[in-house]
Formats: sequence, structure tokens, C-alpha cells
Amino acid sequence: MGQYLYGKNVVKQLLKDKTAIQELYLAVNDPQIIALAQQNGVKVTKVERRYLDKLLKNSNHQGVAVLKEEYKMYSVDDILADIHDHAGLIVVLDELSDPHNLGAILRTCDCVGADGIIIKKNNAVGLTATVAKTSAGAIDTVKVASVTNLTKTLEYLKSKGYWVYGTGFVDAKDYRQSDYQENVVLVIGNEGKGMSRLVKESCDHIIKLPMVGKISSLNASCAAAVLLYEIYNKRFPL
Amino acid sequence: MGQYLYGKNVVKQLLKDKTAIQELYLAVNDPQIIALAQQNGVKVTKVERRYLDKLLKNSNHQGVAVLKEEYKMYSVDDILADIHDHAGLIVVLDELSDPHNLGAILRTCDCVGADGIIIKKNNAVGLTATVAKTSAGAIDTVKVASVTNLTKTLEYLKSKGYWVYGTGFVDAKDYRQSDYQENVVLVIGNEGKGMSRLVKESCDHIIKLPMVGKISSLNASCAAAVLLYEIYNKRFPL
Repeated sequence: MGQYLYGKNVVKQLLKDKTAIQELYLAVNDPQIIALAQQNGVKVTKVERRYLDKLLKNSNHQGVAVLKEEYKMYSVDDILADIHDHAGLIVVLDELSDPHNLGAILRTCDCVGADGIIIKKNNAVGLTATVAKTSAGAIDTVKVASVTNLTKTLEYLKSKGYWVYGTGFVDAKDYRQSDYQENVVLVIGNEGKGMSRLVKESCDHIIKLPMVGKISSLNASCAAAVLLYEIYNKRFPL
Repeated sequence: MGQYLYGKNVVKQLLKDKTAIQELYLAVNDPQIIALAQQNGVKVTKVERRYLDKLLKNSNHQGVAVLKEEYKMYSVDDILADIHDHAGLIVVLDELSDPHNLGAILRTCDCVGADGIIIKKNNAVGLTATVAKTSAGAIDTVKVASVTNLTKTLEYLKSKGYWVYGTGFVDAKDYRQSDYQENVVLVIGNEGKGMSRLVKESCDHIIKLPMVGKISSLNASCAAAVLLYEIYNKRFPL
């Protein structure tokens, strides 16, 4: 199984990053891509534009696509199975849409030693080349599980002894008030609309960051970083 | 001279804020944008999607763009002049290159009430449309100064009673050890190579975040967020 990635810049970056590529399809004459492919020993298959149109369902492929290995995905139980002798820390992303945010959150999860990330299978960004790039390698060091139903997953984690923290404004307490010593699930909502109603209702605690300016929320990956380091600091104080 | 901004949320926010808009280009049918434009007396120019693709070099414009006045820039003394009755907090960006990072840092600066950001005039990202979009409006609420020589600027700020904190690994102390009660300059380095040598030598303190995984640094905007909230929390504890 593999996945198709497309677009001139994406393909060039994959080649520059020496990503393992199974197939490279080219419907345009792009000397730079051809040269990069040669340098990396990747065979170029010349195709018609309409071949890519059909293969990629009329995406904006700019005449070039590659088939590459999919990133390894885990199950929620895979994540739980590796948590033995410490309080668990799992990040749940509720329809996050920006690959830069997912990549940056993966990176922060590696840095604070979080046990894994759970994303939604649909209506959310998955593990793409941009995510891999932004993650600075964390895509290979942090376990990611994708699930179809986040609220069911949250109920399952609660049954396993986890406490669910979500971010919000209504009835929220300051994030510094909790000690986070128990098994923690941290939910980060969508960039525009925050957490969905059902996910919010599954939360045991709603927490907020103090905000003293005109803007009412941080960028999603920045909020995740501040919260994850607070959890780390409470567990491992100076 | 003006600059193009795009994306549905950005344009709606600009219209709601009654920002002076020179042109509004629309390639989709969005009744809310049309209504907001009418309320503000902004003429809507219907265009083809590919017109915007070309104008904005294939950015993710979502079918809507505006041309507005360029962002107001400030001097370092403008920033200092507004700091009267509180400890100052100024963020210095040493050749930051990613507009998403600059936008996210602007947003965090608004949220923690930082007094301003100083960027380099050359070899660094400036105030672009992507920065504006990522900043969620903070581009208009946080003062930004650009300077040609960062080390000279740091020496000037030190002469004005500021202490300079940079991030690094060598001879660095844990960021939680400082109390940040004095006037603080926080320097964030370039995404790839960190702070330049001369800037590093201008720092009074080198601080680091604990990292327990395989990756040795956070995304620049995430690191800035963790550090800025630590400074906020030390100054305004629970």
C-alpha cells in the first residue's frame, strides 16, 4: 500500500529529502524534476495528463505525481500497550486541518515524551509530505492512530483510566490550576471552530490559557506546545 | 502601494474591522462577504478563479482577495515609548524565514501582551499576506519594527535597561529558572540554524527547554509560545 502525492514543489521536496519513492509519473517537461529523480535513482514514467487527472481525481497535480510508502499508523491499543511505568499522555486532534500544525504538534509531542497522537480518519489532515517535513522527523518517532469516531475513542480512553482535558472559553478553568499527575488526554480542536460539541461533552475538564490582548486564541500548535510543556513541568518540576 | 490579503476568514475579519480596502476580488458566491462589503461600501469585483491563482501565485485564496494598505511599521523607539508602568517584553526574531511562524508569533505576542516584535530588514520574512492570515489579526495589534543590524539594536536595548534572553544548547540553563521580572528581550533564532553568532554573544542569558525525545528543538513559533507564556506566568502567577 502506498499513497499518491502530487504537485511540482511537493515532488521536488520529496526528491530533495531522498524520500523512498515507488513510482514517479510525469506529464510535463520539467528538467529540474528529471535531474533530481536521476540523482536519487528514481525511474521517471512519462504519462499523459489525463492519466493523472483520472488517477488523482482531477486534483491540481501540475503534471507530476509520485507513489510513496504510507507512514506507519498505529491503533489506540498500540499506543496504550507501551505505557507501563509512567502517567500516560495522549494528544487527540479534533479535525485539525493545517498540515503545519499537525507537523509542529508531532514535533512537540516528541520533545515532551508524549505517548501518541490520535487523529480523525475523515475531515482532518492526515500524514502528508508537508506534515512529515514540518515534524522534523517526529513523524517517525511519535505513534499516530487514526479513528473514525473520536467520542467513542474518548469514552474508551476514559474506561482505561484517562482524564480528558479540552480547551475552551465557557466554564473553563486556568490551565495552571491542574496538576496533570494522572493519565491525561489533551484534546486540541479545529483551527477555526474549535472542538465539536460531542467531543466537548466528553471532556472531564475544560481549560483555558490567559489572554490579555485583542485576540482570543493561540495558533493550534502553539496552544498545544504551551499546554504540553505545562503538563511536562507539573510532572517533572525543576 | 498596497498588499494583497486573501482567504474567506481574513477578508471577513477585515470587513468586520472596517479596514480600509482598496479592492475586493471575488471568484466564488459568498453571500456573507457580499453583505459585509455592501455594509462597508466596498465595491466587489467578480473575477475568475484563475485570475486570483495568477495574482496570488497559486496561494490558497479560497476565491477571495483584497488589496489593502501596507501594514504600518514602527521604530524601536516607538515600541519603547509605550512601555511606562510595566516590565517591558520585546521579541527579537533573528532571520526567521517561515511566514507561518511569524504569523503565529505575532498572535502569541498579542495574547500575552508583549510590547513589540523586532525583525531584520534583510534575510528574513516580512509582513506578508500569509503572515497576516496566520496572525489572525495580530498584525494590526502588535507593533513590529524592522532593523538592519540586530546586534546594534540589542546593545541599544541593553543600554535602555533590558536583559536579553536567547535560546540555545551550550551553557544554557533551564528556562524555568529565571523569574523574568525585569525588562526582557526574548530572541528567537532562525528555524534551521538558530541564532547567529553575534546575536548569541549579545545575550545575557541562554535558556533551553527540556527535551526528552529524539528531536532537539521545537518549531520556532511553538518554542516562542512556551517561553512567552512562562514569562507571563512568572509575572502574573495564579
